[in-house]
Amino acid sequence: MILGIDIGGANTKLASSDGSHTEIHYLPLWKSSLLPEVLKDIASRHKPEAVGVVMTGELADSFSDKDEGIQYIARAVEEAFADVWYIDSSGTPAREAKRSAAAANWAASAVLAGRDFGDCIFADTGSTTTDIIPVVNGAAACAKTDLERLCRGELIYAGALRTNLAALMDRVELRGCACRISSELFAITGDVYLLLGHISAEAYNCETPDGSGKDTGSARRRLARVVCADIHELSDEDLISIAEQAKQKQVSELAGALSGCAGKWKLERVVGCGLGEFLIEEACAKAGLGFTSVSQEYGHDISVVFPAYAAARIVSEKCF
Amino acid sequence: MILGIDIGGANTKLASSDGSHTEIHYLPLWKSSLLPEVLKDIASRHKPEAVGVVMTGELADSFSDKDEGIQYIARAVEEAFADVWYIDSSGTPAREAKRSAAAANWAASAVLAGRDFGDCIFADTGSTTTDIIPVVNGAAACAKTDLERLCRGELIYAGALRTNLAALMDRVELRGCACRISSELFAITGDVYLLLGHISAEAYNCETPDGSGKDTGSARRRLARVVCADIHELSDEDLISIAEQAKQKQVSELAGALSGCAGKWKLERVVGCGLGEFLIEEACAKAGLGFTSVSQEYGHDISVVFPAYAAARIVSEKCF
Repeated sequence: MILGIDIGGANTKLASSDGSHTEIHYLPLWKSSLLPEVLKDIASRHKPEAVGVVMTGELADSFSDKDEGIQYIARAVEEAFADVWYIDSSGTPAREAKRSAAAANWAASAVLAGRDFGDCIFADTGSTTTDIIPVVNGAAACAKTDLERLCRGELIYAGALRTNLAALMDRVELRGCACRISSELFAITGDVYLLLGHISAEAYNCETPDGSGKDTGSARRRLARVVCADIHELSDEDLISIAEQAKQKQVSELAGALSGCAGKWKLERVVGCGLGEFLIEEACAKAGLGFTSVSQEYGHDISVVFPAYAAARIVSEKCF
Repeated sequence: MILGIDIGGANTKLASSDGSHTEIHYLPLWKSSLLPEVLKDIASRHKPEAVGVVMTGELADSFSDKDEGIQYIARAVEEAFADVWYIDSSGTPAREAKRSAAAANWAASAVLAGRDFGDCIFADTGSTTTDIIPVVNGAAACAKTDLERLCRGELIYAGALRTNLAALMDRVELRGCACRISSELFAITGDVYLLLGHISAEAYNCETPDGSGKDTGSARRRLARVVCADIHELSDEDLISIAEQAKQKQVSELAGALSGCAGKWKLERVVGCGLGEFLIEEACAKAGLGFTSVSQEYGHDISVVFPAYAAARIVSEKCF
């Protein structure tokens, strides 16, 4: 078995190169030191011949800089596995985890998307961020660092689960007013999409902001706090409206970035994956772009771990 | 001695009615259960004849709703002190902590500001939030709940210390681009104002987002993470520019809200206090409004605990 491993700040994801096996481990690197143990456990359970590794977790603020993060992750990987390939921002596997391996899980995805779908915009909305990668002549044409991608609209730091609503919105329309909102971490996009029925309680795999349940009642209570209210100060319509407005804000941001990328690179089709694939689909409809669903092509389980799957495929097929 | 106590979500503040003594205890209610002990310690050290209590901490998301928060706070107060007055949103002391005592520390301040300064806009930028209270005919003319005040621009949920930069801004101008920013809790307004020299490391009394130091070097590192960068990916000018943009965004929001309030109530003068008094002063200059500094009138120590001081004064002078 060839395994792909995508080590993010919040989640470590696995996929086998044949797509038959996937795993998602919620493992927040900024507060946990369990990565070495989790990787050793994966190694002992699966005994892979080789692993393809991509990472974004080096940005976690428990590391003083990205080099420290890369070294920590590489050490944990190499203590667990013998045959390791790192896939960096060029999409090429290497034996060593170089600086160019930082924040490059999108590069593996773009290589595979280019091979399987041809030129397109590859978009991946995960728990925390959204990658928007122009794939031109089979290669990723985006900038190579997070900073440059943020500047170019190729990275939107908002996802379908962990994003603080205070970071997504300034105000909500409520009873005819543009109501300001709290800046605390009172509710996240996971609460919005749980309440609107887009994700399950099982998919909501991070902690809730208040430590309480992953049921829709608790999500309503968290959404009410965003406008400093108890749940009984708002109607259910108010709460659904707040959730819908958060969703529309996220879809609009995404549609704008996809349109910009499509115009710049003369691309008309988006290949979308991730826990927030539904957001990409809605953004494409809004932006008038074609949409190909990775869930439909490969199944939902692969869609939510696509960079790991791509890393496994790249290593297994030696397409480098 | 008559003591005023302002029990917020993040800080519990004290002032004596003669203004000779003040204390600030960083005591985040959402993760600490130390309030009863801290209040008993205050009682044993000061042995006040009476206490005037105002609160905002009932919104902490460790409480399922505000009533639970009010009861928790009131129980802690009454176990520590014998002669207790709660000042509610009407500005009137009462023996019982009623629902109207929720989120009403501004009410005590407005009563005192009205007596000492006449009709004005009373503005208090604390660590976490900003109250903008029209004082008309000596009484607060604002809405009575946080939800209504958010709708009317009388509460801006941004302060001089704890506000996540991701909640304050969408993008920063960087090297000619409108650069998107991370939605993580990577840096707070305390980092901005520490770096710009507006607050001291001592005034930065909450935890840093990454748990590291309260020096300007660490603040720079946190600001760099806001655009997903290591410190060496940005120049010092870039970092100062990010901090200045955060400040200008906060000042602009404040100026807009003050202008709206001034126009609505035909008020021309702002009385400003709090850790972020400097922001109110700049916002008044921007909005063309007169500014009276509570720091200059009563001293800096009173300015940063003004609601507690006002509560103490109200109880000591029985001005009800």
